[in-house]
Amino acid sequence: MTKENMQYKFYWEDFPTGQVSEFGGITVLKEDIIRFAREFDPQPFHLDEEAAKASLFGGLCASGWHTCSMAMRMMCDAYLLESSSLGSPGLENIRWLKPVFAGDTVHVRLTVLEARPLESKPHVGLVRSRWQMINQNNEEVMQMEGYGMFRRRPTQP
Amino acid sequence: MTKENMQYKFYWEDFPTGQVSEFGGITVLKEDIIRFAREFDPQPFHLDEEAAKASLFGGLCASGWHTCSMAMRMMCDAYLLESSSLGSPGLENIRWLKPVFAGDTVHVRLTVLEARPLESKPHVGLVRSRWQMINQNNEEVMQMEGYGMFRRRPTQP
Repeated sequence: MTKENMQYKFYWEDFPTGQVSEFGGITVLKEDIIRFAREFDPQPFHLDEEAAKASLFGGLCASGWHTCSMAMRMMCDAYLLESSSLGSPGLENIRWLKPVFAGDTVHVRLTVLEARPLESKPHVGLVRSRWQMINQNNEEVMQMEGYGMFRRRPTQP
Repeated sequence: MTKENMQYKFYWEDFPTGQVSEFGGITVLKEDIIRFAREFDPQPFHLDEEAAKASLFGGLCASGWHTCSMAMRMMCDAYLLESSSLGSPGLENIRWLKPVFAGDTVHVRLTVLEARPLESKPHVGLVRSRWQMINQNNEEVMQMEGYGMFRRRPTQP
């Protein structure tokens, strides 16, 4: 079965401009912060509780890349794996606004900023979105904007 | 020992505008691609070789977040862990230009686009850089731009 003839729950039409959705909810474990940091970002404030307490952040906190990756997983689970997604060419304006500490519970708010069909490929639409990650105190800890391409809903025969 | 009185190998002065450096060199393993994808980005072309062959990408390839995280690790090993880094507020313009396939060997080219002292904090300097990830065929697979803040080199007493 190819991407052409598969059936999906979500198509480009399901992401209209202005739509806001909230999803996810992950409690970030100390062990996960340290495991990610050991592999990808071994700075002391992501690896060691004592060093983190003495750092600018004041406590063990997740690598910014770990934070982005957790947002990706929440997006996959909420809709992306059941969608006609054709991938993303990139992202803009990643901002790590506040530390994500061990024990924090974070979720994602997705706002569709723009949705338009591709002129060159009429069966594909572009969606420009803002993702915000929000913690249990309703603080925004991360923000980014990105494009996604989605196949349009097939017309009924 | 606090960040103030530690001695580092690299300070803000070591990242002058226009400087280009190349470092790293990671061969991306199939097992690592799949392990990252299972945790953070379980789309079929990051998880399953057969599904990946049938996809737009034509083969098993790393999650874009995995690619970014590998670049971070190469940066840590090359200079960041031995530097006076005070962290990064964010990044711009991430572009995933080509897939990173299992078996590819990638490294990083870092270009300093701008380096200037912070007016509000004269002991701190800002460095704006472009990171490019390049594969064994000299193809650019990823690009991003970001700000980093570094403590300036202490003056000799």
